[in-house]
Amino acid sequence: MKTNRMIEGNMLIAQSGGPTAVINQSLIGAVLEAKKHAPIKNIYGALHGIQGILDENLIDLKKETKTTLETVANTPSSALGSVRRKPTSADCTAIFKVLEKYNVRYFFYIGGNDSAETTHIINEEAKKAKYQLRCFHICKTIDNDLRQNDHTPGFGSAGKFVAQAFMGDDLDNRALGGVKINIVMGRHAGFLTAAAALARQDEEDGPHLIYLPERPFAMSRFIKDVKAVHKKYGRCVIAVSEGISDARGTAIVTKGSAGKEVDSHGNVQLSGTGALGDILSKEIKEKTSILRVRADTFGYLQRSFAGCVSEVDAKEAFGVGATAVKEAISGNKDGSIAIKRKPGKKYAVEFKRVPLKSVAKETQHMPGKFINAEGNHVTQAFIDYAAPIIGKLPKTGKLKRIPVKNR
Amino acid sequence: MKTNRMIEGNMLIAQSGGPTAVINQSLIGAVLEAKKHAPIKNIYGALHGIQGILDENLIDLKKETKTTLETVANTPSSALGSVRRKPTSADCTAIFKVLEKYNVRYFFYIGGNDSAETTHIINEEAKKAKYQLRCFHICKTIDNDLRQNDHTPGFGSAGKFVAQAFMGDDLDNRALGGVKINIVMGRHAGFLTAAAALARQDEEDGPHLIYLPERPFAMSRFIKDVKAVHKKYGRCVIAVSEGISDARGTAIVTKGSAGKEVDSHGNVQLSGTGALGDILSKEIKEKTSILRVRADTFGYLQRSFAGCVSEVDAKEAFGVGATAVKEAISGNKDGSIAIKRKPGKKYAVEFKRVPLKSVAKETQHMPGKFINAEGNHVTQAFIDYAAPIIGKLPKTGKLKRIPVKNR
Repeated sequence: MKTNRMIEGNMLIAQSGGPTAVINQSLIGAVLEAKKHAPIKNIYGALHGIQGILDENLIDLKKETKTTLETVANTPSSALGSVRRKPTSADCTAIFKVLEKYNVRYFFYIGGNDSAETTHIINEEAKKAKYQLRCFHICKTIDNDLRQNDHTPGFGSAGKFVAQAFMGDDLDNRALGGVKINIVMGRHAGFLTAAAALARQDEEDGPHLIYLPERPFAMSRFIKDVKAVHKKYGRCVIAVSEGISDARGTAIVTKGSAGKEVDSHGNVQLSGTGALGDILSKEIKEKTSILRVRADTFGYLQRSFAGCVSEVDAKEAFGVGATAVKEAISGNKDGSIAIKRKPGKKYAVEFKRVPLKSVAKETQHMPGKFINAEGNHVTQAFIDYAAPIIGKLPKTGKLKRIPVKNR
Repeated sequence: MKTNRMIEGNMLIAQSGGPTAVINQSLIGAVLEAKKHAPIKNIYGALHGIQGILDENLIDLKKETKTTLETVANTPSSALGSVRRKPTSADCTAIFKVLEKYNVRYFFYIGGNDSAETTHIINEEAKKAKYQLRCFHICKTIDNDLRQNDHTPGFGSAGKFVAQAFMGDDLDNRALGGVKINIVMGRHAGFLTAAAALARQDEEDGPHLIYLPERPFAMSRFIKDVKAVHKKYGRCVIAVSEGISDARGTAIVTKGSAGKEVDSHGNVQLSGTGALGDILSKEIKEKTSILRVRADTFGYLQRSFAGCVSEVDAKEAFGVGATAVKEAISGNKDGSIAIKRKPGKKYAVEFKRVPLKSVAKETQHMPGKFINAEGNHVTQAFIDYAAPIIGKLPKTGKLKRIPVKNR
């Protein structure tokens, strides 16, 4: 809905959900853009998402120095703190009381699909309450699973981390042999796990197998795949999404764990535990004669590692933040800023305002064309899709290994 | 023993033990140095350490191009492959047969204390067998636990990875709160875990607690420490060495795991499993009211991550490789090349030949002056020691968070 009516008031911005390496680019992108527009008077940050609004835990972002803002933009994880909380109707009433008290008329919420849902709820409740508010969601998620988006800020940098980890880890496995399993974040979407494929330079390079939540995981098939690769190369490197589930939809990780931890959006805890890797290792040790089996869980490192950022990702994250403010100032009432890829051979994107509801709640999965027929690796189409987002990777090389003639 | 007699013959070099991010710098440092010396005719590499000698699995390193060698130097993990194997007397006899067949008179073995032991055994057996051989060990290990060495190649880069991981992970924990445990490699020595402390810029930054194998680990004390930090900051980031043991010397990880895997040097498998992190998380969840508890195990990422190298570490790794060849050519019969720090305020090192036996087998622990009185963190002396080895870290920043005046 375009109102074409410039409103004067203060702005409030907050961050929600899992941090990323570039989520502060979006924050600073929005803040620096807002400073250019006279109708936006004060710029407030709420600490820990909507929790900070409810608690009146607000900071003054106009009082931060230029140097601080620039440094923070290049710093991983949510500088305003984060939260996982879905607002109730009562929460919204309380939120509008605070917003009114501080004359907040511009609201920006940086997050994934759950945060888009939160923004959508606040927007709808604001309408009902007749509280005049420009209400925008700014996309982020390393999972890359937001609808309407070609890809999301945070994915490129996390994907770069995963690719670099696999580059090194594949060489490590090459040196010592055996099977190496790496568990990568991804509850419902396999994009980040699939990014491991960018580590490959030669046919023999790992990851040799990639298991994604988009395909049912069968333990017997897994063991068969591992045996086949190990027979061929004397080793095997495997990328596994934390969210892999069997044909009935039961997460494999829950098969070995005791308690389940659930947040207010209904998500079960998958990260921050080594359980899935240990379950899969045990299975290989029991069902094959392979002696050396190791599993690592990348965990939180992949979303907040300091010093591993995709330049394209950082630039785009800044762009979506700035665009949200521009859209709000130009008279648009609400929306989510999505990244759309322009057609053509050369990589280029544009930022588009899309309806909040179209991004909220449900997630986007990897399209079939990105997954191979066997369901245990990615296709070239995925590589072509992901490479420009993830950007430049370190240059590594192997010895030619020219044999010495036997004497 | 200095023989002062130049011997002509071929050179053989191999890598052993756990890979590092800069172990190929030592390899290429030795190869490029060897190319300068006429008495060294051919330069062979054995694939997978002494296993490659036993299998006559040799490659011709003189046939590698300059570009390949330079790229490989900057590539993590052992380019020649690795092995964990302690040679028996029979192995040595077989090894000398192969060395004689290929007229190898210069032998270089890049590795840690187990590899120094292997080199020492081969050297002693060569003397007994009257097989004329220049026999050198070139130090490496991310554990930083080689005797005679101020520090070892590989530690700086792994330490940089650990510090960068903690920088990001501490910000991640700051955003979402709760307790975060990170398990770092280190069987007997806590240097690498201690490197996490370099992530700290402010008093409130994590790691707030550091547990090292050098001090007995008591679960009750651990829980008490965690509660105290959590009370103070509302969160807690913890660095834990994989090798922490109780007062009786029993590794904490073995308290929760089923089987134990042991290599031929007698080392139990600690990495490549998330067990320790899960044991500690479970304990915190059971013994405190803290709701959000997560654990990550850095695993193999910390030793072979592509694109995270300390420049000082890379330079020194190259240096020890080149020095080993220089020492052998200059008439010295055997030894290990150790890194000694020069006295004085400005960081500077020299590479010294030390007896093989003095480096072999036993490891070096963190000196008491590097560990705080409570045994749950490091001292400033450790920071001063490690900072120049680990080198430059990414610049991150925090918002000043100036509160908005309550209305």
